[in-house]
Amino acid sequence: MPELRKDPVVDRWVIIAPERADRPNALLRPLPESDGETCPFCPGNEVMTPPEVLVHPGKAGGWSVRVVPNRYPALRTEIQMSRAGNGLFDSTAGVGAHEVVIETAEHRKSLADLPAAQIESVLTAWQERMIDLSRDLRLKALFAFKNQGAPAGATLPHAHSQLVALPFVPPALADELRGARRHYDDKERCIFCDILAQELRDKERVVLETEGAVALSPYAARSPFETWLFLREHRSSFESATGQELRSVADALRTVLRKIDVALDRPAYNLLLHTMPLRESRNDWYHWHLELKPVLTLQAGFEWASGCYINPTPPEEAAGFLRQTETAP
Amino acid sequence: MPELRKDPVVDRWVIIAPERADRPNALLRPLPESDGETCPFCPGNEVMTPPEVLVHPGKAGGWSVRVVPNRYPALRTEIQMSRAGNGLFDSTAGVGAHEVVIETAEHRKSLADLPAAQIESVLTAWQERMIDLSRDLRLKALFAFKNQGAPAGATLPHAHSQLVALPFVPPALADELRGARRHYDDKERCIFCDILAQELRDKERVVLETEGAVALSPYAARSPFETWLFLREHRSSFESATGQELRSVADALRTVLRKIDVALDRPAYNLLLHTMPLRESRNDWYHWHLELKPVLTLQAGFEWASGCYINPTPPEEAAGFLRQTETAP
Repeated sequence: MPELRKDPVVDRWVIIAPERADRPNALLRPLPESDGETCPFCPGNEVMTPPEVLVHPGKAGGWSVRVVPNRYPALRTEIQMSRAGNGLFDSTAGVGAHEVVIETAEHRKSLADLPAAQIESVLTAWQERMIDLSRDLRLKALFAFKNQGAPAGATLPHAHSQLVALPFVPPALADELRGARRHYDDKERCIFCDILAQELRDKERVVLETEGAVALSPYAARSPFETWLFLREHRSSFESATGQELRSVADALRTVLRKIDVALDRPAYNLLLHTMPLRESRNDWYHWHLELKPVLTLQAGFEWASGCYINPTPPEEAAGFLRQTETAP
Repeated sequence: MPELRKDPVVDRWVIIAPERADRPNALLRPLPESDGETCPFCPGNEVMTPPEVLVHPGKAGGWSVRVVPNRYPALRTEIQMSRAGNGLFDSTAGVGAHEVVIETAEHRKSLADLPAAQIESVLTAWQERMIDLSRDLRLKALFAFKNQGAPAGATLPHAHSQLVALPFVPPALADELRGARRHYDDKERCIFCDILAQELRDKERVVLETEGAVALSPYAARSPFETWLFLREHRSSFESATGQELRSVADALRTVLRKIDVALDRPAYNLLLHTMPLRESRNDWYHWHLELKPVLTLQAGFEWASGCYINPTPPEEAAGFLRQTETAP
């Protein structure tokens, strides 16, 4: 059973998940070549995954997007919340959810290869699962993320993203919420809206502007070609995004992914969603967004030791390069 | 010129270091095979590095340990401190030091292959450089770390570690100092001494006990086989460690590295030093230590999104396995 443990010095929660040691590639074995016959995410092999929790219908009675519980879950909903102490050490049962979103029925297509409507369907599946999982009041925050390619942590090549719901608000999101709240308390404005306004004036870190969305290289990008994607309008919660808004983000995301693929020769990447904790009402101070990080450098000893990042590519150069990168329509 | 930039939302400093884009393997190219003729760290090739800042003499007029400025520095001492603002964004000149410690003259030996006295000589070189760099009052904290193997971020195969001095106390160390200080304010005891006492009673996470040092798998280990190494006695600062203490740590480190090499088939790893900020006097609440992290899993989208870690290997299993692993003397 998974267990959450807190480091007694730095209050850092770690998920100890022995069941994940069984999955393919758990300890850095190379990504297996798989084809439609052996791939658990391909049509016809649905019995190879746990039963689905959501399906979007596809052509000819098939499916186009399918969501299933992760077969090697880091956390589980079907266990009781329980806390335990042993001297200095605190633990709690690994309550949470861990699901897989199969993004397409086609084995060889990447997310960037899909039509905008299909990418929208993936985002909609994230949202539908988020709304459903938010009914479990033990769950506090949900992360949608995607590992594309083995260097980014993918263990299967068929295009998929993942959803993890946690029973607490973890540090990376808590830090963002705290910073955004502090800015709002001071200025009564959303800090992300302020950043967008400044970036759209300066232009040098803007990767893409569409009618509804903006992609930019963040000023203090942690790694080369890190790119963030926002709705232009202030919106705090992905849970309450409209169909029009998801369409707008899907369109812009598709263009950004295709630019990255052309500019960097289809790199491995991580993509993630940052949004308000579950069930928290709309507010004026937080702005949901996507973060995309091509895997071009490694986190090494220095990053681990200091918690700082070294980025060899100035964000202005990355943005300029991506702005000029042409993609097929 | 390197530049330090602060993220306006989460107050995270990032080092933007365009010069590092020129180094080998900057963007995940495979580690080049090199031999004694082309390796810049081999005897006879000293002109391939910047002039040395420290040398330990070796046999026959040669050297055994050599410290040189990094040819692709993330930070530089020879620039002026200067701060600048642009709307929401803050930056400062990339003042700092970045040095390379060549750990042996022998091209094919890893740190684990070296005799204990040579490992002690490496730790002594770290300390000597730390004391020298501490005279630059702009520098606030120093990190010694080692990336062994390409998956751990090494760009050259010849055994070496690195030293980075920063003009601020970065988050990973600041968090530890804060947690240790809070425990001391509450209990008037060092939290690391308390952890050692509990672990030495429980035994299940202890990897190694020697007369002077203890190695253990931390209770909330972030990744498989993460191992921490402490002096048994309370000591806050590596800068003021005695020769006897460094010898004791070198001995234990050698045994731990050799156990890891046998148990995990010479994995890539990161090794790092956590100690008090520069020039801070000895205290009763912080305990310097080494952290060793074999690279067996990847940080992927979930870790990036949440700041939490998923560890598939319970620390008790890792410690039990390493305890039983026999190494050649």
